[in-house]
Amino acid sequence: MPSKPAPTDDEADPRTVAELSEFALIDELTKGRGQGAGVLLGPGDDAALLTAADGRVVASTDVLVESVHFRFDWSTPEQVGRKAAAVNLADLAAMGARPTALLLGIGCPATTRVAVLRELTAGLWREAQLVGAGLAGGDVVTAGQLVITVTALGDLGGHAPVTRTGARPGDVLAVCGRLGWAAAGLAVLGRGFRSPVAVVNAQRWPEPPYGAGPRAAEQGATSMIDVSDGLLADLGHLASASGVSIDVQTARVVIPQRLAEVGSALGADPMRWILTGGEDHCLAATFPEPSAVPEDWTLIGSVGRGAGVTVDGEAYAGPGGWEHWR
Amino acid sequence: MPSKPAPTDDEADPRTVAELSEFALIDELTKGRGQGAGVLLGPGDDAALLTAADGRVVASTDVLVESVHFRFDWSTPEQVGRKAAAVNLADLAAMGARPTALLLGIGCPATTRVAVLRELTAGLWREAQLVGAGLAGGDVVTAGQLVITVTALGDLGGHAPVTRTGARPGDVLAVCGRLGWAAAGLAVLGRGFRSPVAVVNAQRWPEPPYGAGPRAAEQGATSMIDVSDGLLADLGHLASASGVSIDVQTARVVIPQRLAEVGSALGADPMRWILTGGEDHCLAATFPEPSAVPEDWTLIGSVGRGAGVTVDGEAYAGPGGWEHWR
Repeated sequence: MPSKPAPTDDEADPRTVAELSEFALIDELTKGRGQGAGVLLGPGDDAALLTAADGRVVASTDVLVESVHFRFDWSTPEQVGRKAAAVNLADLAAMGARPTALLLGIGCPATTRVAVLRELTAGLWREAQLVGAGLAGGDVVTAGQLVITVTALGDLGGHAPVTRTGARPGDVLAVCGRLGWAAAGLAVLGRGFRSPVAVVNAQRWPEPPYGAGPRAAEQGATSMIDVSDGLLADLGHLASASGVSIDVQTARVVIPQRLAEVGSALGADPMRWILTGGEDHCLAATFPEPSAVPEDWTLIGSVGRGAGVTVDGEAYAGPGGWEHWR
Repeated sequence: MPSKPAPTDDEADPRTVAELSEFALIDELTKGRGQGAGVLLGPGDDAALLTAADGRVVASTDVLVESVHFRFDWSTPEQVGRKAAAVNLADLAAMGARPTALLLGIGCPATTRVAVLRELTAGLWREAQLVGAGLAGGDVVTAGQLVITVTALGDLGGHAPVTRTGARPGDVLAVCGRLGWAAAGLAVLGRGFRSPVAVVNAQRWPEPPYGAGPRAAEQGATSMIDVSDGLLADLGHLASASGVSIDVQTARVVIPQRLAEVGSALGADPMRWILTGGEDHCLAATFPEPSAVPEDWTLIGSVGRGAGVTVDGEAYAGPGGWEHWR
């Protein structure tokens, strides 16, 4: 089942998880790490204790499976850890929340090297620390295949959550963060190439614009979603939840020079990556008027009456996104 | 890898998870269910929103893997769901917390029947609702084997958490809930029997004394732990974290009639099940004096200076508990 044994930089440590007690393993994965200010009690007890400053807590869970969501012939354990953290932290950002802490569940073969889990959790710590969060607790058990479940907890700072249901006809649509980069990276890796590094790394782990979510909430975003399945697919979820239609205007979508180059080299259309590529975890949100769109967001469309998502006023031909089961 | 295809009562629904969209599947698993009062925003958005009334949140994650933690030739999907919820809810109780909500991560083969996941989540709902909690969110993805990760969130009601570190020499040791029942059930099932039902069911899902945890906290418990690995093993964790020794006095331990009967029938020592059997998820706690022990708890030992766990003043011969990797 595993695509290939996970690589590790630490040749000096040949121990497998089967050779360590549960407590020794937790110590290996957490020693020397600092928790964020929101972690009142970290790993080692029956449960963790976290702050929830405004009397509420935002919570999201995502599962990543080897060979389905990552491959160790494409990514290092550290990159996989960053991705596992990022996809959850992006979900919090899409509600307008700032992260407090992560919890980690790992199922892995007993033959998994301790060094692999240490590098994987190093990636989680690194991504969590970008946003001032910690890794507050978890569980590691035997399984036939590496399965990583991350739960992220966060705080809304007294604001209302920005859900998928609040878009209204007349709103404008804007996005913040990368679109199409992970899809371009997948196309490159799928043909056996390892460069350009910028797009290949975008496939290995996303770089969601974490701070943009809470800022959009403060500036009155009416709805927001994390783009994980592809822009059109996720706008479809937003349109459906809000009971509106959404139109994307491609003339407003900037194609980054790097994606244009990769598209040209591979004979692929970079606009398709931007409209349908998943895994970048940028944010898409609606705002009541153009002046409400924060500076680091790009206005790319509009909200109307009706249902469904169109591109330049028309249905978009071809597959629109990614379905887990198909 | 799977022990056997999961059984399901619903022969009328042959659909597999691969036949449903992600949203249709979430709808199947959540429709008609009520959330607890602590769930402000449930499944269907980027993240859930929960109350955290005292400005903090207690959080615990556990991973259960088919063939490692449960078997479908021994348990129904509903029983597995109850167990997945219970092991986490017991962790919250062991901190003195009352549960608010669960989050669920599932990895499963694309051929898994929708009815199996519906029954599994029905078990989670049932157990969560015993304590007034809901199933606030989750993720379902493809994996080679069924892997269930549950995160439980809870509230301390303004109290300090009861950790593993607070036991002091002179404290008394008490337990609340079943001990040895799951181990007796495992012995019965392992020999191919299906009765007595009471002990077999104790192996299928635990019945932790959820309310006893917060009540012990209110009555001044100095330390507390959820007995998942076996009484002596978990007391070892508590003794080590607190820097104390603990002695269990077997004369104070009541052997339930049913365990005595099963032990007699199988030629096994029921006291060994009680001292070393895991998976019952009863609670063990220390109190500053016998009068502080709540009525539904049983005083079974004492805390002293030094280190380690003894039984009637002596080291206990034989394996002490369960190690995940061995």
